[in-house]
Amino acid sequence: MKETTIVEKEKVEPNSAVLIEGLPGLGMIGKIATEYLVKQLKAGRIAELYSPHFAYYVLVNKQGTVRLLRSVLHYWKNEKGENDLIMLTGDSQAQTIEGQYDVADTILDFAGKKNVKLIVTIGGFRKEVKDEPQVMVSATSQGLLHKALEAGAKGSPSGNPIVGTAGLLAGLAKLKKMDAICLLVETPGYLSDPRAAKSVLNVLKKMLRFDVDLSGLDEEILKSERIEERMKRIEEERRTSAEKRRKIEEEKVSYIS
Amino acid sequence: MKETTIVEKEKVEPNSAVLIEGLPGLGMIGKIATEYLVKQLKAGRIAELYSPHFAYYVLVNKQGTVRLLRSVLHYWKNEKGENDLIMLTGDSQAQTIEGQYDVADTILDFAGKKNVKLIVTIGGFRKEVKDEPQVMVSATSQGLLHKALEAGAKGSPSGNPIVGTAGLLAGLAKLKKMDAICLLVETPGYLSDPRAAKSVLNVLKKMLRFDVDLSGLDEEILKSERIEERMKRIEEERRTSAEKRRKIEEEKVSYIS
Amino acid sequence: MKETTIVEKEKVEPNSAVLIEGLPGLGMIGKIATEYLVKQLKAGRIAELYSPHFAYYVLVNKQGTVRLLRSVLHYWKNEKGENDLIMLTGDSQAQTIEGQYDVADTILDFAGKKNVKLIVTIGGFRKEVKDEPQVMVSATSQGLLHKALEAGAKGSPSGNPIVGTAGLLAGLAKLKKMDAICLLVETPGYLSDPRAAKSVLNVLKKMLRFDVDLSGLDEEILKSERIEERMKRIEEERRTSAEKRRKIEEEKVSYIS
Amino acid sequence: MKETTIVEKEKVEPNSAVLIEGLPGLGMIGKIATEYLVKQLKAGRIAELYSPHFAYYVLVNKQGTVRLLRSVLHYWKNEKGENDLIMLTGDSQAQTIEGQYDVADTILDFAGKKNVKLIVTIGGFRKEVKDEPQVMVSATSQGLLHKALEAGAKGSPSGNPIVGTAGLLAGLAKLKKMDAICLLVETPGYLSDPRAAKSVLNVLKKMLRFDVDLSGLDEEILKSERIEERMKRIEEERRTSAEKRRKIEEEKVSYIS
Repeated sequence: MKETTIVEKEKVEPNSAVLIEGLPGLGMIGKIATEYLVKQLKAGRIAELYSPHFAYYVLVNKQGTVRLLRSVLHYWKNEKGENDLIMLTGDSQAQTIEGQYDVADTILDFAGKKNVKLIVTIGGFRKEVKDEPQVMVSATSQGLLHKALEAGAKGSPSGNPIVGTAGLLAGLAKLKKMDAICLLVETPGYLSDPRAAKSVLNVLKKMLRFDVDLSGLDEEILKSERIEERMKRIEEERRTSAEKRRKIEEEKVSYIS
Repeated sequence: MKETTIVEKEKVEPNSAVLIEGLPGLGMIGKIATEYLVKQLKAGRIAELYSPHFAYYVLVNKQGTVRLLRSVLHYWKNEKGENDLIMLTGDSQAQTIEGQYDVADTILDFAGKKNVKLIVTIGGFRKEVKDEPQVMVSATSQGLLHKALEAGAKGSPSGNPIVGTAGLLAGLAKLKKMDAICLLVETPGYLSDPRAAKSVLNVLKKMLRFDVDLSGLDEEILKSERIEERMKRIEEERRTSAEKRRKIEEEKVSYIS
Repeated sequence: MKETTIVEKEKVEPNSAVLIEGLPGLGMIGKIATEYLVKQLKAGRIAELYSPHFAYYVLVNKQGTVRLLRSVLHYWKNEKGENDLIMLTGDSQAQTIEGQYDVADTILDFAGKKNVKLIVTIGGFRKEVKDEPQVMVSATSQGLLHKALEAGAKGSPSGNPIVGTAGLLAGLAKLKKMDAICLLVETPGYLSDPRAAKSVLNVLKKMLRFDVDLSGLDEEILKSERIEERMKRIEEERRTSAEKRRKIEEEKVSYIS
Repeated sequence: MKETTIVEKEKVEPNSAVLIEGLPGLGMIGKIATEYLVKQLKAGRIAELYSPHFAYYVLVNKQGTVRLLRSVLHYWKNEKGENDLIMLTGDSQAQTIEGQYDVADTILDFAGKKNVKLIVTIGGFRKEVKDEPQVMVSATSQGLLHKALEAGAKGSPSGNPIVGTAGLLAGLAKLKKMDAICLLVETPGYLSDPRAAKSVLNVLKKMLRFDVDLSGLDEEILKSERIEERMKRIEEERRTSAEKRRKIEEEKVSYIS
């Protein structure tokens, strides 16, 4: 494979659609949120994206069959509202600089052909979170920003870089005169963070005015909180015992001097 | 050279063929197995593959002549059974991400032109081995998997990445609607492992129903076992003397404190 | 985006122009000088340069809108003198070797179309500076060198490499039979250095015979001097306390032995 | 610049020529030898090679003019013997894997157009040298090997990799059915080694049957021997004083324990 390639599995022709991107990244938020949407909306797989800029290994699935790293695109026909949804998630991001630009470009070309009117990218940014994780918004235009603010997002601090596909899709969209919005949500980031994914989906459903039940994420959230607590306990024990060791060492030294 | 290039040395036109790939990797298993097949079947060299994605040095052979890094393809006409064999091995794998995809792609294009119906890739995966090294199989379809399981392979654990040409050939084959199967065999991996190569060839000959005498590998296996034992002995001595040194140090410290 | 691209915002057709390049680098001198010129001359934005060789992130500006990394080109019509100015600055340089050559090449192609007769590149080179920072000149021809020497620059020491876009623009210009001149100014380099930027602009305005008031930089210079002094004080304190610690350690050791 | 480019300065049309390559590498042998030949034979510059795969900086020469990194090709019309010489040397080698193959390929294309019948590449390989540095030869054919052996070279040990342009030129030449020979000479390699360069030129002039006075290298050899001796003295002093320090430390420790 010499070029990034999108293989269509089912031809769809939306009148107007929103493309939601959620690839692996900090806290796996984009991936969790997008995969949850796909499952909850029973969206159908319409295409797969392959690229020579992905890592050079293949995965073995449960049935023992191999497959290349890829992104997958699902489609949900919105029977009640204005916008259909195309959801993109996948195994990984491109591994080289030029590859990152190339993959984002290929996605936007596909979006253009499918009458996508808005690109929404989802990601996390590192922050210790106390209560509800806040969603920060940036966009290609002021109008879009206001829609997200109304839906509960906060303005993104300026100067903030948005790294990878989530950022480049928005930046390149602007260049191609397409609308795009980035939703980054606070996350400690070292573990899968379904709580942050729920926050971002709450903003998204209000903003795009479609209905989806998010309670299915609560069990995942409970599980992740239990893991987090266990890790905190282990870390505390490690720190206490390191502290003890340090004191013993200090006593030796002061004894000598 | 600006492109990966296959130089044909002899035109062959199989009706139906299997391409067996065995490039250098963990335990050198693919290379050992493929080279043994080539020698044992007296297969003839039909082509060489060169690529600007290989490392930028040349090798000097015994006669003092230089040559680029390359892969070589050999051909064996199966007079008794259904499938002819094309065997690919070589000096090294591509050195860049995009190069890995490009080389695998070029091999598959060649395979398509030669009526190859099945790609078999051979490699190792790291594991301390007690008795007979197990062969793990993954494939592009359930039907193929079953054939390999019948021939003595075990199912590959899911989630397992298969890195490099062995993986990409199978993944890209699937994308191009070609059949492919990966045979990975257990190996400690730090030394050339002819024993693991023999295990994989045992599965292969049963699966493809061709006959080849594998006893020629036994001498290599004996040699490698002797090297392994010697290395274990050296490692043990190193550990014992390090242990002694550590104790002396501890005594000094305890004397001071 | 697969290629470095210049997007024109406003078509201009200079009879004869000078292109001044000042991208981020040592001491941020090129960027400070070029941005000051743009502001002071009230130059209008005529084009933006985007490249898949820039880093793969986007920036969020104060209004919360996202944008790709880019270079921007401004144009100033010189009503009194001979040469109009095109000024190029931006967020960053290309991140790969081939990208550096590609971006410089694209800039020169644009310059050619805009009747640019001279390329001036601005940068810093690391040196502890006592009084006025000296400007070192190198160029594509002896005639150009003399003009810069007359304007107060000194000859650049031979063998000196000029790294990045500032260097490649000049080197590639020569290959394309265009005139180019590099002005590198002495700078300690670890902080933004408006004083060095003022030195370079002083040479530039004399050489190109255009008038621009540079007193607006004086406030920036004062600010940066204050920061520098504070950092020196902190560094001195750090050194003093490190010295103390070292002496205590030495006394311990000599006590033991 | 998007492609490796050769700019011809003077059109020459040899009936039959040998291309001698000597780029910077271990001990700078290729560069020293080739530059000496150029000077001694009063060869004229016929072409320059530029590449986006060279490092992204420019050099300033003594007159203060800038230039891109490049290779230069000189031509010597052999009035007495059979073969004209084209000599290639330069600032550096390509910086990426694909760039290395691309530059070597471009050189061979040029050589083909100029009726080059033989490529000779010169380099060093690391070895402590006692008397006369030995020249090791490898080539694209047995016939060529014998010519070099007759001229005083020794056969290169097999398995030896020849890295960079010196190797790739020979490997790619073979692929293109051109003749090539690599002369690698023993060198400690950490300093410029004119003595090794003289050894290789001695073999070369015998093999190609052209006459060139090599005594001009003797002064360089004397200079380099003096530098070498000074460095050995410094190294010895360093070792002696390190030894002393170590003994003092040991005495302290043994005093404590």
